[in-house]
Amino acid sequence: MIRVQDVYPEGRISLREVGLRDGLQLVKSFPSTAAKQRWIGEEYAAGVRHFEVGSFLPAKTFPQFADVRELVKAVTELPSAHGIVLALNERGVNEALASGVAEIASVVSATEEHSHANANRSREQAIANIRRLCELRDASPHEPIVHAAISMALGCSIAGAVDPDEVLRLVEKCLAAGVDAVGIADTVGYAGPKQVGDLTRAAVRLAGSKPICVHLHDTRGMGIANASAALDAGARILDGSLAGLGGCPFAPGATGNVVFEDLVFLCESKGFPTGIDIEKLIAVRAILRAEMPNEPLYGGLARAGLPRAPAAKAA
Amino acid sequence: MIRVQDVYPEGRISLREVGLRDGLQLVKSFPSTAAKQRWIGEEYAAGVRHFEVGSFLPAKTFPQFADVRELVKAVTELPSAHGIVLALNERGVNEALASGVAEIASVVSATEEHSHANANRSREQAIANIRRLCELRDASPHEPIVHAAISMALGCSIAGAVDPDEVLRLVEKCLAAGVDAVGIADTVGYAGPKQVGDLTRAAVRLAGSKPICVHLHDTRGMGIANASAALDAGARILDGSLAGLGGCPFAPGATGNVVFEDLVFLCESKGFPTGIDIEKLIAVRAILRAEMPNEPLYGGLARAGLPRAPAAKAA
Repeated sequence: MIRVQDVYPEGRISLREVGLRDGLQLVKSFPSTAAKQRWIGEEYAAGVRHFEVGSFLPAKTFPQFADVRELVKAVTELPSAHGIVLALNERGVNEALASGVAEIASVVSATEEHSHANANRSREQAIANIRRLCELRDASPHEPIVHAAISMALGCSIAGAVDPDEVLRLVEKCLAAGVDAVGIADTVGYAGPKQVGDLTRAAVRLAGSKPICVHLHDTRGMGIANASAALDAGARILDGSLAGLGGCPFAPGATGNVVFEDLVFLCESKGFPTGIDIEKLIAVRAILRAEMPNEPLYGGLARAGLPRAPAAKAA
Repeated sequence: MIRVQDVYPEGRISLREVGLRDGLQLVKSFPSTAAKQRWIGEEYAAGVRHFEVGSFLPAKTFPQFADVRELVKAVTELPSAHGIVLALNERGVNEALASGVAEIASVVSATEEHSHANANRSREQAIANIRRLCELRDASPHEPIVHAAISMALGCSIAGAVDPDEVLRLVEKCLAAGVDAVGIADTVGYAGPKQVGDLTRAAVRLAGSKPICVHLHDTRGMGIANASAALDAGARILDGSLAGLGGCPFAPGATGNVVFEDLVFLCESKGFPTGIDIEKLIAVRAILRAEMPNEPLYGGLARAGLPRAPAAKAA
């Protein structure tokens, strides 16, 4: 049994690299399996411990995730590293359980409109799915962590504004279903820091000792500001992707996830130690440049470098 | 006499467009005077009221500011619009006073090292300069607002970390010199939101009824997060530039000021009304694209647009 408290300890921030899954969700070209393994290995050496590595989806439609089992294995072999996969239906959940992955994530849309448009099911059906995922977890030998992410939780590309109370009701339902962690996702980057802070604070209250994860996209340049608000509001997990990789099918032309390197800088500057070496992390971008030369890479730290200490003076 | 309370009313946020000055400080090509006038006119129509339009510097070295008097005039003719110029020595101050501009800004470096390297003078000499500026203001017929900006206030490209207490001592000296407003500038984008919030809060306490302006660069992607912290800490004025124009001579390759459009979105999302129409503001970028085709333009709102309300459903 994997205990959420061991993986996402209370009293500290855990940063999840979601570039290998969310960052590759929409791309046409993607790194080779060997390159992904180097990506994981180099980030691990930089101090990253939480990796979302793929999704159990049909490899025909999503060839970028065909190697998900190998990546789960690669992460599992690294001491204290923690692998996460997305599984959206019972077949996927069973495959995920069989892979031995430490955490399985599922999704429910915050709005009925998006739930139907995106997954062709109601929110209640998505919650039933999560309940089933928890049952399968309980019956499994290693009992991985179950993470329920609420997409479009801060604004919906179909329904527009989202009532925070509806999101909080979904948080409660996920908790009642037996999940170990709940994610709040600003999937299309609609929110500002006040909304993110308010919703996070309320979700943290509901979740008690279970961690709240905040997953942000930098679509409108608010990503880091929203992450800062989430930290202040008690989020225990934040997501980001190397170089801000990953867009959103519902927000064409949008930049992707919060830039992982900048997120690390933010956390450290606010006094939340991450254990991650930013310069080593920035160096990992070379893999993306080589493997995905047409993908735009974002990030302030990569551009400007760390603030410099005073230059050594000539004697 | 121009009263600071009329220009930067207490209880609300004023956003200053500094693109025409700080945004053009380093560029090789720059808009024609007619294009700058359209830039001002279109932003005014979008609701912008505060424009930093140039600097009284030798036109030979800074041809981009040769038209500063014409731009002061252009802003002055617009009802309720407020023009600002930078003047770094007594000759510049006298020229600024003669131009009839509503606000004159001067600068003191937070560190002795940067003061000498950048302006070839001590901080005390810079403060004496500001004191003289206040005397000349008092003796002038229209008594413009005097704004003292403390550059490198959150980290220095030469000296490294900056002691906030030293910055606060400079804030006190500027206030004692008789300035109407004090600016805190993260000139090289070294800070995170905690430092910005802490320093702003302390400066606001010192300044009493006089406004604190926070001037941020997005060098490391923290610009909007820092602006959010400055808002929470009681800053009454925030600077930004259209499309994030403007770099910094001390931070090569660095992106420029906080993106004005994104700053407006941030303020509105946090419940600070700006009176600025973001879509109209975004449209003004066409002037930059036409006049400065090689300059990178930044901004999340320009890229992704405003969050959409629900799409109208087919009947």
